[in-house]
Amino acid sequence: MSLVSYHLSEIVSRFGGHVEGDDSVAVNQVATLDHATSGQIAFLTNSKYRKQLESTHASAVIVAESDVDATTLPRIVCENPYSYFAKLSTFLNPLPAVKAGIHSSAVVGNGAKISPGAQIDEFVSIGEGAIIGSGSVIMAGCSIGANTAIGENTRLYPRVVVYHNCLVGNNVIIHSGVVIGADGFGFAMENNAWLKIPQIGRAIIGNDVEIGANTTIDRGALDNTVIEDGVKLDNLIQIAHNVRIGSHTVIAGCAGIAGSTTVGSYCQIGGSAGIVGHVNIADGVVISPFTMISKSLREKGTYSGMNPFSEKDKWMKNTAHLRHLDEMATRIKNLEKELEALNRRE
Amino acid sequence: MSLVSYHLSEIVSRFGGHVEGDDSVAVNQVATLDHATSGQIAFLTNSKYRKQLESTHASAVIVAESDVDATTLPRIVCENPYSYFAKLSTFLNPLPAVKAGIHSSAVVGNGAKISPGAQIDEFVSIGEGAIIGSGSVIMAGCSIGANTAIGENTRLYPRVVVYHNCLVGNNVIIHSGVVIGADGFGFAMENNAWLKIPQIGRAIIGNDVEIGANTTIDRGALDNTVIEDGVKLDNLIQIAHNVRIGSHTVIAGCAGIAGSTTVGSYCQIGGSAGIVGHVNIADGVVISPFTMISKSLREKGTYSGMNPFSEKDKWMKNTAHLRHLDEMATRIKNLEKELEALNRRE
Amino acid sequence: MSLVSYHLSEIVSRFGGHVEGDDSVAVNQVATLDHATSGQIAFLTNSKYRKQLESTHASAVIVAESDVDATTLPRIVCENPYSYFAKLSTFLNPLPAVKAGIHSSAVVGNGAKISPGAQIDEFVSIGEGAIIGSGSVIMAGCSIGANTAIGENTRLYPRVVVYHNCLVGNNVIIHSGVVIGADGFGFAMENNAWLKIPQIGRAIIGNDVEIGANTTIDRGALDNTVIEDGVKLDNLIQIAHNVRIGSHTVIAGCAGIAGSTTVGSYCQIGGSAGIVGHVNIADGVVISPFTMISKSLREKGTYSGMNPFSEKDKWMKNTAHLRHLDEMATRIKNLEKELEALNRRE
Repeated sequence: MSLVSYHLSEIVSRFGGHVEGDDSVAVNQVATLDHATSGQIAFLTNSKYRKQLESTHASAVIVAESDVDATTLPRIVCENPYSYFAKLSTFLNPLPAVKAGIHSSAVVGNGAKISPGAQIDEFVSIGEGAIIGSGSVIMAGCSIGANTAIGENTRLYPRVVVYHNCLVGNNVIIHSGVVIGADGFGFAMENNAWLKIPQIGRAIIGNDVEIGANTTIDRGALDNTVIEDGVKLDNLIQIAHNVRIGSHTVIAGCAGIAGSTTVGSYCQIGGSAGIVGHVNIADGVVISPFTMISKSLREKGTYSGMNPFSEKDKWMKNTAHLRHLDEMATRIKNLEKELEALNRRE
Repeated sequence: MSLVSYHLSEIVSRFGGHVEGDDSVAVNQVATLDHATSGQIAFLTNSKYRKQLESTHASAVIVAESDVDATTLPRIVCENPYSYFAKLSTFLNPLPAVKAGIHSSAVVGNGAKISPGAQIDEFVSIGEGAIIGSGSVIMAGCSIGANTAIGENTRLYPRVVVYHNCLVGNNVIIHSGVVIGADGFGFAMENNAWLKIPQIGRAIIGNDVEIGANTTIDRGALDNTVIEDGVKLDNLIQIAHNVRIGSHTVIAGCAGIAGSTTVGSYCQIGGSAGIVGHVNIADGVVISPFTMISKSLREKGTYSGMNPFSEKDKWMKNTAHLRHLDEMATRIKNLEKELEALNRRE
Repeated sequence: MSLVSYHLSEIVSRFGGHVEGDDSVAVNQVATLDHATSGQIAFLTNSKYRKQLESTHASAVIVAESDVDATTLPRIVCENPYSYFAKLSTFLNPLPAVKAGIHSSAVVGNGAKISPGAQIDEFVSIGEGAIIGSGSVIMAGCSIGANTAIGENTRLYPRVVVYHNCLVGNNVIIHSGVVIGADGFGFAMENNAWLKIPQIGRAIIGNDVEIGANTTIDRGALDNTVIEDGVKLDNLIQIAHNVRIGSHTVIAGCAGIAGSTTVGSYCQIGGSAGIVGHVNIADGVVISPFTMISKSLREKGTYSGMNPFSEKDKWMKNTAHLRHLDEMATRIKNLEKELEALNRRE
C-alpha cells in the first residue's frame, strides 16, 4: 500500500485549523506520539501526555490551542485534535474503491434490484425482490434475504447475514459474522411444550450505523426492532426483538439488551452490561461495564452495578456475609435499641 | 407477500374455541392491540391490558373466557389466548415452501445421502457420508461436516456450520452463524505449554429444538454434548463440551454453560447468566438474568445473584464497604459482646 | 472411521512410561473410565476416582506411579497421565490428511501466494497478495483479506474471516465463525455525531494458538492487536483493539478484554469474566469466572468478584441492604462511639 504525502498547508486548507512552524512539511500517515516515525503526524488530545512530545519522532503534531507552546515541532492547531485526527486519518486511509458489478458466482433472486453502482462479491446470495443501493459493497459470502433493502454507500464485510424483509440505511458499516433479522426469542407454553411464535416484524437499521463483528440484531415479533441513525455497536452484542436503540447511542462489546426495551439517544452502554426487557432508558444515560439494569431509568446520569473484585481469599471471607446482610441489619437495629434503652436508664 | 383472509368461523373450526359476535368477519394477520389495523386480529393475554381494547383498530380479538365481556368486537374465546395466537400466526405466516433439490453450486461429498425432498441452497458444503432428511432446508453457505446427520423438516438459515459426526433431529430451527460441534476447550499442561486434548465426542441436538443466531455448541471431549428435545436457545449462548440440556429448557441470550454440567428439564435460564462446570441443575429451576450459579442446585426454585445497580456516586460509596464486610461483621459481634457485658454489670 | 490398534508395548516405546501387566494388550481408542469398552484405554488423573477402576470395562489404563497398585488391569505408568492421554489421543485420532490443492470454486486475488502444500476448499476467498503456508487447510467459505499471511500447518474451519493485512502463525487452529481483524471500536464526537477513527493497525496471531468458535479479535487502531504464542481462547470471546495477550494464557468462553489492555503470560481467565481497557495484568494471574477486573493487577494471584447467588426471596431480602451499606457502616461507627462513651462514664 503506497501512501500519498500532503503538506500541512494542504491539510489545513482542507480541514481547517492553522499551522505553527514549517507548513511545507509533508506527512502521509497518522500515528501515536510513541510510535510515529518520520513522515507521520501524531496528535495530542490530553495535556497530560505533553511529556511524550519531547521524545516523539513524528514530523508534525495536531494540538489544541492550549497546547500550542508544548512543542516546537511543526503543528496543526485546532479546536478538537481528536476529531481532527479522525478526519485526517479517514482522508489518508481511504477504503478500497468500489468496483461496481456483480461477481459471476453471486446468486441473485428474481426481481432483485441491484444498482449498477453497487459491488457484489463472490459467493453472495441476494434474495428475490431485494434492493442494493449505489456505492454499496456486499463482500464475499454475504446473504441478503428476500425483499430486504440495503441503502447507498453501505459496506457489508464478508459473511454478514441479513434476513428477509429488513431495512439497512445509507453509510452503514456491518462487520463479518453479524446476523440481522433472525427470529426473536418468543414461545408460548401449551401441553408442556413450547410453541413458536412467528416473528413477523422487521429489523430496521438507520443511516450512519456501525455494527461490530458477530453482533446479532433480531427482527421484531409483531412490530419492528429499530436501530436509529448514528448508533455504534461493538462486537458480540445481542439486541433482542422489538428493541429500539436511540440515535447516536454507543454500546460496547458483549452487552445484551432484552426484548421490547427502548434505549434513548446519546446513551453509552459499557461492555458486558445488560438491560432487562420491557423498560425505558432515558436519553444520555451512561451505564458502567458489567452492570445489569433491572428497571427503567427516567433520568440522565451514570449508573453502576459491578461487583468489586479482590484477592480470592479476601473475597471469600467478605462475600460470605452477603448472604447474611439482612440478619446483620437486624442486629444493628437491635444494638441501637438496646443502647438507647441503656442510655435512657442512666 | 399477499396475505390470505380467513373468517373467524373457519379459524375456530380449525383451532377450537368459539366466536362471540359476527363470525363472518375475516382476518389475514395477527397484530398487537396497539398496532392492529382493519383486517387484523389482536389478542388479550393479560386483563391489565383491557384498556387497550377500547382504542384498538383490530377487526377481531382473541380473549380468555374471563375477558369475554371486555369488548364488543368480534372475538374468539379460548382457554389460552397466547398459545392460540401462536398457532394462528403460524398458520397465517407459513414459511416459504420447501423447494426440493440441490443447487448446482453446492458441493456434496462422496457417500452423502440427501433426501430428494430436501432443499440444498447455493454455496452449501455437505461432507462425505452426511445425511439430510426429507423436508429439510439447508440455506446458503451452510457447511455440514462428514458423517453428520440432519433429520427431517429441519431448517438451517444461511451460514450455519455443523462439524463432522454430529446429529441434528427433526423439526429443528437453527439460525445464522450458529456453530455446532466445534472442539471443546480442553488442554493438558506439559513442559510449560498446553497440549490439545482431541475432542472426539459428538454434539447431539434433539427434535423440536430452536437455536438462536451465533450460538455455539461444542462437541464432547470423549462422551457427547446433548441438547434434548424441545430446548430453545436464544442468541450468542455458549454451551461447552459434555453439557446436557434437559428437554424443554429455555435459555436467554448471552448465557454460558461450562463443561460437563447437566441442566434439567423445563428450566429457565436468564440472559447473561452462567453456570460453572461439572454441576447438576434440577428440573424446573429458574435462574435470574446476570446470575452466576457456582454449585449444583438440587431443588426446583428460583435463584438470583445479580448485583443491584445505583447511581454511580451512591454505588461507589456503598460498594467500597463490600471489601470490608468481614470486618463489619466482627465489629457488630464485638458491639454485641460489650453491650451484653454492660447489661450484665447493671 | 476405522481405527488402528496398538499394543501397549508400542505405545510406551513411542510416548515413554512403562507397562505393568500384559503389554501385548492392544487398544484403538481413549475413553473415560465410566464409558470405556473393550479395546479402549482409560486414564486416572486423580486418585479420588480410583473407585471407578473397579467397574471400568477398559482394556487398559494410564496411571501415575502413585496409583500403580490401584488396579490389576494392564496399565501404562507415567509421570503425568493427563498429558500422556492427550498425546496418545492425538496419535489415535489424527486429523484428516491435508489434500493439497485449490478447489475450483475458490477465488484467489492477484499476487496471492498459496503454497502447493496448502489445501484451499470450496467457496474460499483469498485476497490480493495474501500468503498461505504449506500444510495449512482453509476450509469451506473462509475469507482471507488482502495481504494477510497465514503460516504453516494452520487449520481454519469453515466460515472463518481474517481481514486484510493480518498475520496468523504456524500450527494455529481457528474454529468456525471466528472474525480476526475487524475494526476496533473507536469514534470521536464532533457536532453531536460520532466520527469513525480508521482502524489501521493489524491483528497478529502467534504460533500454536487455538481460537474457539465465534470469537472476535479486532485489529489495532494505530498499533497492533497481538495474541502471543500458545494462547488458547474459548468460544464467543471479545478481544478489543490494541490488546496484547501474553504467551500460553488461556481464556474461557464469553470473556471480554477491552481496548489497549495487556494480559501477561500463563494467565487463566474464567468464563464471562471481563477486563476494562488500558490496564496491565501480571504474568500468572488467575481470574475467576464472572469477575470484572477494573484496574491493573501487578501481582500474581487469584482474583474473584462474582456476586453469590441464593434463592430469590433470600437474595431480595439481603440484596436490598447493598444500597444502604454506607449508612450501615455509619451506624456501626456511631454505636461504637456511644458504647465507648457509656463505658467511660461507668
